[in-house]
Amino acid sequence: MPSGRPARVETPAPGDPRLARLSLNQRTTANWSLREAIDGCVAAGLPSIGIWREPLAEAGLENGVAWVRDAGLRVSSLCRGGFFTAADAGARARAHADNLAAIDEAAAIGAPTLVLVPGGLPTGDRDLPAARERAADAIAALVPHARERGVTLGIEPMHPIYAADRGVVSTLAQALDIAEQHPADVVGVVVDTFHLWWEPGIVDTIARAGRRIVSYQVCDWITPLPPDALLARGMMGDGHIDFAEFTAAVAAAGYTGDVEVEIFNADVWAAAGTDTVSTLARRYVELVEPHL
Amino acid sequence: MPSGRPARVETPAPGDPRLARLSLNQRTTANWSLREAIDGCVAAGLPSIGIWREPLAEAGLENGVAWVRDAGLRVSSLCRGGFFTAADAGARARAHADNLAAIDEAAAIGAPTLVLVPGGLPTGDRDLPAARERAADAIAALVPHARERGVTLGIEPMHPIYAADRGVVSTLAQALDIAEQHPADVVGVVVDTFHLWWEPGIVDTIARAGRRIVSYQVCDWITPLPPDALLARGMMGDGHIDFAEFTAAVAAAGYTGDVEVEIFNADVWAAAGTDTVSTLARRYVELVEPHL
Repeated sequence: MPSGRPARVETPAPGDPRLARLSLNQRTTANWSLREAIDGCVAAGLPSIGIWREPLAEAGLENGVAWVRDAGLRVSSLCRGGFFTAADAGARARAHADNLAAIDEAAAIGAPTLVLVPGGLPTGDRDLPAARERAADAIAALVPHARERGVTLGIEPMHPIYAADRGVVSTLAQALDIAEQHPADVVGVVVDTFHLWWEPGIVDTIARAGRRIVSYQVCDWITPLPPDALLARGMMGDGHIDFAEFTAAVAAAGYTGDVEVEIFNADVWAAAGTDTVSTLARRYVELVEPHL
Repeated sequence: MPSGRPARVETPAPGDPRLARLSLNQRTTANWSLREAIDGCVAAGLPSIGIWREPLAEAGLENGVAWVRDAGLRVSSLCRGGFFTAADAGARARAHADNLAAIDEAAAIGAPTLVLVPGGLPTGDRDLPAARERAADAIAALVPHARERGVTLGIEPMHPIYAADRGVVSTLAQALDIAEQHPADVVGVVVDTFHLWWEPGIVDTIARAGRRIVSYQVCDWITPLPPDALLARGMMGDGHIDFAEFTAAVAAAGYTGDVEVEIFNADVWAAAGTDTVSTLARRYVELVEPHL
């Protein structure tokens, strides 16, 4: 079991209307291949999946496209582009090319959104404002290709715990400052409870985001924080986040898309994938879905 | 050695004018008693010390007052009051009484500032906005006594990594929203590089803080983050923080007080106190002092 909290609701059966917007972000079941994750969604009655590029590449893009289509799943997002804060021009050019490819993959697999993780500070570089400017510039450079392919870029603000090594965009307000420089159908924002639950004024900022919200991801903030900061996420209900208030704010902003459960956690990963999916489905219908 | 970085400057000798504003926050040498920390400051030529209430209580307040006076040290701050986010009225009343006592101690020991750590969410409580309101209310309730004793309350915004379990005030902007409800000579803010280095717009917000800055604390953000999030701080120069820009902003805001080095880190604590003080003095004169 990925969580010791007693079950307060039954595991919803496939076809349960409460599952209609639930998506499995593939990293939550990190030990499953893409094929296994697709099968796991179908078996549990989840209508949607958030796909990662690495397992998609392992499976082969054409296979992935066919499997998803044959399974009748939606793809809620492709994770992930970004990582374009390098200081040297060559690395930035490579990141740009890789992001163009990611946009093509998102279009091919039918993902409406490519999630963008901005990247951290280059090694030895302490100029955070400059890295943030490079991220904004790199996003702007992707806009024409994203528009052409019909893919919305989703800027993911990340918890400040990752500002140094992963994501220099640290608040939803900051992500919106970048996104609002572009048309809303091309550049949006990813709202992830783990990253944003602490942000002062978050309810108002979610309202400001409105239709810019292109992905809603849920997991919990747990304490004590697990030793590996990259695997610090908890199952909804195991931590400190008020999913009722947060989810209601996202719904009030007009978001009608899928809700991805994305959990990076060694204990969750050690559990059987089917148990993890069953647990997250219960928690979702208990804590998140009623507020959508 | 608390840090493997090669020394780029000589350890400054006692009397070196570059040490004129350097303060040892006592928790940086956690294994030293108050008596040892005072002696360590004198031996290294540090003119100031940030004192913690627990070791002060162990030494006895009268002893502490006499030792500091006889050593000719300034007390840059008393750490710490706060922890007043409890939901039940009895616990809040106890926290208020404890903070009144802390204000008295600050006045007795000659600390111009009592550092306030707001506290986290009560166990099982997920209402972060309400906890933030209780913190603001508790600060307001301390204002008359602080004014009477001539002690400035220093609200310490804490890195969002601690929002759940330690400090619900997460940004300098949020701390200022609270402080600005009160006279500037009674309620100010603590600016700590570790907590605030990632905050978007921090340079402008430091300018907004101006004379509200009642304490400037320095240490670095290091990666990978050490396993215990409460002991995650690094020696200046070992991490990602741009001390030049940050310090220049604090100086431009008009801050003329002492600069406390406050490092919670198991490796630093395992080192001999004299080595730690020597290292931090070198790093300070290399990375911080030139920008004051």
